[in-house]
Amino acid sequence: MALLIKNGEIITADSRYKADIYVEGETITRIGQSLEAPPGTEVIDASGQYVFPGFIDPHVHIYLPFMATFAKDTHETGSKAALMGGTTTYIEMCAPSRHEDTLEGYQLWKGKAEGNSYCDYTFHMAVTRFDDKTAAQLREIVKDGINSFKIFLSYKGFFGVDDGEMYQTLRLAKELGVIVTAHCENAELVGQLQQKLLSEGKTGPEWHEPSRPESVEAEGTARFATFLENTGATGYVVHLSCKPALDAAMDAKARGVPLFIESVIPHFLLDKTYAERGGVEAMKYIMSPPLRDKRNQKALWDALAMGFIDTVGTDHCPFDTAQKLLGKDAFTAIPNGIPAIEDRVNLLYTYGVSRGNLDIHRFVDAASTKSAKLFGLFPRKGTIAVGSDADLVIYDPSYRGKISAATQSVNNDYNGFEGFEIDGKPRVVTVRGKVAVRDGQFVGEKGRGKLLRREPMYF
Amino acid sequence: MALLIKNGEIITADSRYKADIYVEGETITRIGQSLEAPPGTEVIDASGQYVFPGFIDPHVHIYLPFMATFAKDTHETGSKAALMGGTTTYIEMCAPSRHEDTLEGYQLWKGKAEGNSYCDYTFHMAVTRFDDKTAAQLREIVKDGINSFKIFLSYKGFFGVDDGEMYQTLRLAKELGVIVTAHCENAELVGQLQQKLLSEGKTGPEWHEPSRPESVEAEGTARFATFLENTGATGYVVHLSCKPALDAAMDAKARGVPLFIESVIPHFLLDKTYAERGGVEAMKYIMSPPLRDKRNQKALWDALAMGFIDTVGTDHCPFDTAQKLLGKDAFTAIPNGIPAIEDRVNLLYTYGVSRGNLDIHRFVDAASTKSAKLFGLFPRKGTIAVGSDADLVIYDPSYRGKISAATQSVNNDYNGFEGFEIDGKPRVVTVRGKVAVRDGQFVGEKGRGKLLRREPMYF
Amino acid sequence: MALLIKNGEIITADSRYKADIYVEGETITRIGQSLEAPPGTEVIDASGQYVFPGFIDPHVHIYLPFMATFAKDTHETGSKAALMGGTTTYIEMCAPSRHEDTLEGYQLWKGKAEGNSYCDYTFHMAVTRFDDKTAAQLREIVKDGINSFKIFLSYKGFFGVDDGEMYQTLRLAKELGVIVTAHCENAELVGQLQQKLLSEGKTGPEWHEPSRPESVEAEGTARFATFLENTGATGYVVHLSCKPALDAAMDAKARGVPLFIESVIPHFLLDKTYAERGGVEAMKYIMSPPLRDKRNQKALWDALAMGFIDTVGTDHCPFDTAQKLLGKDAFTAIPNGIPAIEDRVNLLYTYGVSRGNLDIHRFVDAASTKSAKLFGLFPRKGTIAVGSDADLVIYDPSYRGKISAATQSVNNDYNGFEGFEIDGKPRVVTVRGKVAVRDGQFVGEKGRGKLLRREPMYF
Amino acid sequence: MALLIKNGEIITADSRYKADIYVEGETITRIGQSLEAPPGTEVIDASGQYVFPGFIDPHVHIYLPFMATFAKDTHETGSKAALMGGTTTYIEMCAPSRHEDTLEGYQLWKGKAEGNSYCDYTFHMAVTRFDDKTAAQLREIVKDGINSFKIFLSYKGFFGVDDGEMYQTLRLAKELGVIVTAHCENAELVGQLQQKLLSEGKTGPEWHEPSRPESVEAEGTARFATFLENTGATGYVVHLSCKPALDAAMDAKARGVPLFIESVIPHFLLDKTYAERGGVEAMKYIMSPPLRDKRNQKALWDALAMGFIDTVGTDHCPFDTAQKLLGKDAFTAIPNGIPAIEDRVNLLYTYGVSRGNLDIHRFVDAASTKSAKLFGLFPRKGTIAVGSDADLVIYDPSYRGKISAATQSVNNDYNGFEGFEIDGKPRVVTVRGKVAVRDGQFVGEKGRGKLLRREPMYF
Ligand SMILES: [Zn+2]
Ligand SMILES: [Zn+2]
Ligand SMILES: [Zn+2]
Ligand SMILES: [Zn+2]
Ligand SMILES: [Zn+2]
Ligand SMILES: [Zn+2]
Ligand SMILES: [Zn+2]
Ligand SMILES: [Zn+2]
Repeated sequence: MALLIKNGEIITADSRYKADIYVEGETITRIGQSLEAPPGTEVIDASGQYVFPGFIDPHVHIYLPFMATFAKDTHETGSKAALMGGTTTYIEMCAPSRHEDTLEGYQLWKGKAEGNSYCDYTFHMAVTRFDDKTAAQLREIVKDGINSFKIFLSYKGFFGVDDGEMYQTLRLAKELGVIVTAHCENAELVGQLQQKLLSEGKTGPEWHEPSRPESVEAEGTARFATFLENTGATGYVVHLSCKPALDAAMDAKARGVPLFIESVIPHFLLDKTYAERGGVEAMKYIMSPPLRDKRNQKALWDALAMGFIDTVGTDHCPFDTAQKLLGKDAFTAIPNGIPAIEDRVNLLYTYGVSRGNLDIHRFVDAASTKSAKLFGLFPRKGTIAVGSDADLVIYDPSYRGKISAATQSVNNDYNGFEGFEIDGKPRVVTVRGKVAVRDGQFVGEKGRGKLLRREPMYF
Repeated sequence: MALLIKNGEIITADSRYKADIYVEGETITRIGQSLEAPPGTEVIDASGQYVFPGFIDPHVHIYLPFMATFAKDTHETGSKAALMGGTTTYIEMCAPSRHEDTLEGYQLWKGKAEGNSYCDYTFHMAVTRFDDKTAAQLREIVKDGINSFKIFLSYKGFFGVDDGEMYQTLRLAKELGVIVTAHCENAELVGQLQQKLLSEGKTGPEWHEPSRPESVEAEGTARFATFLENTGATGYVVHLSCKPALDAAMDAKARGVPLFIESVIPHFLLDKTYAERGGVEAMKYIMSPPLRDKRNQKALWDALAMGFIDTVGTDHCPFDTAQKLLGKDAFTAIPNGIPAIEDRVNLLYTYGVSRGNLDIHRFVDAASTKSAKLFGLFPRKGTIAVGSDADLVIYDPSYRGKISAATQSVNNDYNGFEGFEIDGKPRVVTVRGKVAVRDGQFVGEKGRGKLLRREPMYF
Repeated sequence: MALLIKNGEIITADSRYKADIYVEGETITRIGQSLEAPPGTEVIDASGQYVFPGFIDPHVHIYLPFMATFAKDTHETGSKAALMGGTTTYIEMCAPSRHEDTLEGYQLWKGKAEGNSYCDYTFHMAVTRFDDKTAAQLREIVKDGINSFKIFLSYKGFFGVDDGEMYQTLRLAKELGVIVTAHCENAELVGQLQQKLLSEGKTGPEWHEPSRPESVEAEGTARFATFLENTGATGYVVHLSCKPALDAAMDAKARGVPLFIESVIPHFLLDKTYAERGGVEAMKYIMSPPLRDKRNQKALWDALAMGFIDTVGTDHCPFDTAQKLLGKDAFTAIPNGIPAIEDRVNLLYTYGVSRGNLDIHRFVDAASTKSAKLFGLFPRKGTIAVGSDADLVIYDPSYRGKISAATQSVNNDYNGFEGFEIDGKPRVVTVRGKVAVRDGQFVGEKGRGKLLRREPMYF
Repeated sequence: MALLIKNGEIITADSRYKADIYVEGETITRIGQSLEAPPGTEVIDASGQYVFPGFIDPHVHIYLPFMATFAKDTHETGSKAALMGGTTTYIEMCAPSRHEDTLEGYQLWKGKAEGNSYCDYTFHMAVTRFDDKTAAQLREIVKDGINSFKIFLSYKGFFGVDDGEMYQTLRLAKELGVIVTAHCENAELVGQLQQKLLSEGKTGPEWHEPSRPESVEAEGTARFATFLENTGATGYVVHLSCKPALDAAMDAKARGVPLFIESVIPHFLLDKTYAERGGVEAMKYIMSPPLRDKRNQKALWDALAMGFIDTVGTDHCPFDTAQKLLGKDAFTAIPNGIPAIEDRVNLLYTYGVSRGNLDIHRFVDAASTKSAKLFGLFPRKGTIAVGSDADLVIYDPSYRGKISAATQSVNNDYNGFEGFEIDGKPRVVTVRGKVAVRDGQFVGEKGRGKLLRREPMYF
């Protein structure tokens, strides 16, 4: 069945023009003025609306065992929330711990998603240890269509790799044409500072930020960059949160190291005072790297505007109030995460584009196109072009509302952005040519989402 | 008449795919697989070739009175050379001195081009003084379709503006939605150092670089950025040549100043030792900012690869050997310029893309797309898309040759890149749908080039 | 007559030890354990006290015509206040405007001081224009024992020099072995921003800081450094107030430019919110560069601790409340100055040494020794050594009090540091062997202070 | 017995003046004009000579087991060479490996020195592992008069500590008032790059530098600084060799981290082309960090002049030609070291002071005074003052000669600075009041040198 979107203003990372979009099956086949469609074509009038390429969230967690519990999302709940917020593709962290078998982990994560997602998805494959067997398994996983790895410089003994394993992982990645994403915090410093603070009786959530200060993230970022420089691999820092880490990454870029930067939406809009409110209200605002001193926000917005920060993700990871309270006696036991898969696009549009801090093309680029390019999805995803998947967001810039847990689709009992004003909203969202959100109501089809095959890239 | 380009590999700043391009009149109207064309359509087979959007040179000089002589080009000779090298649009500096009337200067420059160019063009309008009358004239010129100014921090008393004039120019530009391009060298230091060197008997071309050292350019760049910061205007540094100036510009970008960077092809490939060869051979390599110490080249290539340097132009400005010899007694009298309008694209492709220093999409971006975007020509120019002007370059990546004055089209008796190897070459170049270069032979139509109207932009 | 100071703890920029100091006439002639003295020697017991070398204020204004009024101090009042606070030498800005004759100005300033000061002094000679006649006069002034110049990059048309005059001044200074001190703010930007703010009805003292923002000072600092780099002269930035200017100066130091940095005590302890209090209370806190955002204070303290900031002065310049009110209708008419000649040493000791932010040797260095070295007074001044002038401060670290206009010696009706706690105080101060402050009471002898002859230095 | 040095020009880090120095026993007891001495006093005429405080080498290796061999020096040979070159105090690295007992190591190293040195000495105590027992032993060693530790971020499994051990060491040091010196290179990267190069057949000495590139040292330096920042400890980078590491250290200083910098004389004067000469000639120039690209030298000299580099040492460590040849099949087996204990002072004086790159006071400071201050020896060592040890160097600035292995005292069969011109030389050197070098001839007394007791310092 065909779909015709008429009279919208198409906005991509590059272009802005009024035209109609004609979709046959899953694919855009024509873009032009006053297109006509055969009988039976579904016609959507997008007058007065923007038409964006479907947005891509490059950093989410869905299936996530943690201590004796699990993050609240399934692919069903997570993908629904994503679509309601205009995100049509997400990349999940597939993260077995170093005590698990890598390939088994991959199959487990894959199985959790299969048939359950309303929209397309893929994985960053975590490398949480490196040995010959793991290397062989990683080669298999790359052949299966995964072209990005994830490493953790933090979480020693669980997810974390040491410098030797990092080196080996980067060498393999370079060989295979795989980009390596990295959580950059110094494992040892975090551990030691946590222990020191707890031993001093500093157990509340307000001590989370001091336990992983800005310098600890800057160190991890600089070290990761140095390893890229010495292996020739291409890297991507996830959830960069502060000016010192940004400086470290920019220093590397300036000397030619192929390093890309992701920041996540909480760090642009929330600051560490949220985690100083006391009690469970504070615990809701615990993630890592932590919410920072407010002065960092201008640095992040400026770097985003300039394209120094390449992408904006979420690090979506929902734990509910009851789960957050697991950390009531020690901040180190608070499950980490400020979920935002549903709100990222609206927040970035509102506080970026609508409030005058971000060019609308850079917005599309950071929230969609650049992720598609970096992770081997472009031009299938990330743009509106003949031949591209018909993942489209008809966006109403005249909408005014507020974020509220009461109206959210995400599977959680609170929203960290509760009360934030929103200056726009998706009205229609399509997944490969089929409407999944219509007039703001969810009409998606479970299992329509597919695992996206991604080929090696040699930067 | 229609044109069909079949079987080429289309490469834009974003995309790379095989498809046919159908052009009706001046405009691309269809892109797709196996397009068919009505009888009478000219069909060009681009098998094994790249198809690039027409390249844009953001910085050239054509009409340029200098002392008692003139730069060698006319719009006829310059545009022919441009097209032979794949450049289908150029932006000329319209630069009356501060002793001339601005509007009269604009009319003069406009008249020189009208009817004479083989390809499209526009102007950066130089602001070489600022007073009420000039301001009023600049408003008229902007209404006439010019949306970029040019200022000189150097050339005191002739082209140069002082800090007060710079401030006023930037305020006007901010109001009008005009981007300001700037030649950034400290006027006073250049003048004083020239005088000092000449008074010490240091008159040869090898003293040109020491008369305007890197620090002098860095100072101008930093000062320009500070004035942008304090006026809110958007700026563009022309012909940035060295690491210290790059650092100054990057510092500004990092604190959110909307500053874009152009470097020109000579600074990527030539260094100051060329100007130390003695005699007229050295004089051929005099331009400003001067050719620099070789260590700067890596910094420029790295910054280009990262997109920190936005565009690559030429500062094309041909003076022949006889003219260069005007400076035989004093380096300050050597006409400035290392012409490259014909060779820029081939050199950047060869030493960037072909030799592994530059991603092919970044190449297209820097040599075409980004200039189109910054100067209000996008998406009419700078990309291959339905609705865009059919300025196309069918490029043969298998060509191997060498640059030589003997075979160039540019109107000069030498070539600063003589003997440089070239790993590719335009085979066909079209100007709004008409073939101007076919099988490497020039078949352009004089006067086909038009002055491009550009609207204000508010960054 | 002789003087013996017994049992004190001598603390210099280098050393800390207990010893007695024996002074014959004006000079220290012996330092040792248990020194004995002939009958008639005045003996002072310094048990439990520190003995510091007399402090040096490298940046004060005494005689200062301003509009139709004058700064409140005479050399008599200023030097008394200095001594009460432990400062035994000051360097006054001798600053005729560019409309006055330089040599006549020098004679005028010299005459104002002669016979009136209680302590020694010298001048930084302002160069407020540069021409042949002025150059000849400056040579005379240097021969008269002045080895430092002062230039203003701000105050266009009055004190300010343009880039050409700056270049000539630096060349002359280099030739003569003279260090050049500079007030670094971009003249044109200050002027334009002032005009813009006033035209928008922003006339209150809270607009003083926005009229000369941090970037304007950073620009001036960077430009001054570039001119030093290109002339080989040695420079000294006065009253550096903020991180961006510090970064500019450090960049220059890092590439080998001989540039020294002074900050003044108000910038370490006060911030721009003081000037946002409204009315005359705010006007008391107007100086240039202005009080800054508080975040700069940590940067200044860190740089001071590291020795990146070389000296701490005051920019002492008292105007009383009535005078401040001259600017009630326009912040541009507020006389500039936050006087501190009496409080500098106590404040720096208290908030630096006593509160743990500054090593005690670095304190002595920054408040005394380094100025002596940079300005040709060492080892006559700035240390405690055999052969040095007996300018000594017996300092009581157990004193606790508060700063108050009610008890100050400085000739003014307010004190910008009113209510600040003080953790120490001079008990005895000597001027070349004669006691001028005894038990905190002033017993100085008018006219004892002499103009210090300073010889050229070639750094 | 007493000693009187007459008519010399005394030059310290601070001062320059002509005076006589009178020494009773081991100590300077008087400094003054035309001092008279009792009969029996040894009188040395220093007319036309400089008198410097004895120089201090903060980084030497004497006893150093390496594979199956030992560095060539004993304390007897090393201290003789030191004195011949004007160095009167050295600090040896006491470096048992992590497989040895720390306290036993300390006793062993102490025993090797005791009674054998001609001049005074002390130790940096290496912490090559950290556990409770070692911590207790370190407390004992500090009580024995050692107030500096040494850690290695490189040499994994042998000398190297991991991040956890580094953290613990710094915490202990902070508690004890001990400064921590560090060899900063990333252990893992060095190991991996060595293995990679060897596996590619790159076994010659020219591959030593690429096996530990500049980025690897910058990473170590930045990481060390981050750990200082998070523990509050005071640090000292040994043998900093390149601009990127300098930038990392300066970044840390700028944000207030108490970090001091040592560079060693080879890095100022030799570059990596020396290690590219092939064969044993190249092997002589292997040390770590390696000799670097020549562009780094200007950065080091500039930073030294500014005081950003605090001290200049040697990393003296002699292996002879036969020992160097142990690495003929693999650069990783070449014993490291370019011995310079005898030549450091002359080289720094010549290429710094005499050739116009370094102020003479900064020279004394960097080669003597600053080490005394940082390591708890001041003012006993490092200056010429009443009460200080009479370690004096009478230096002849009119001497002209060349360095040669043929005339050296150091126990080795080559000299890495062979043929370097020297513009000055010690004529007389005293060790606590006794002449050890007279008229350039060695007359020292074995065993006169003592282990210097150093107390905790709280920066
Ligand atoms: Zn993470
Ligand atoms: Zn995550
Ligand atoms: Zn130019
Ligand atoms: Zn130009
Ligand atoms: Zn001033
Ligand atoms: Zn002043
Ligand atoms: Zn070492
Ligand atoms: Zn060593």
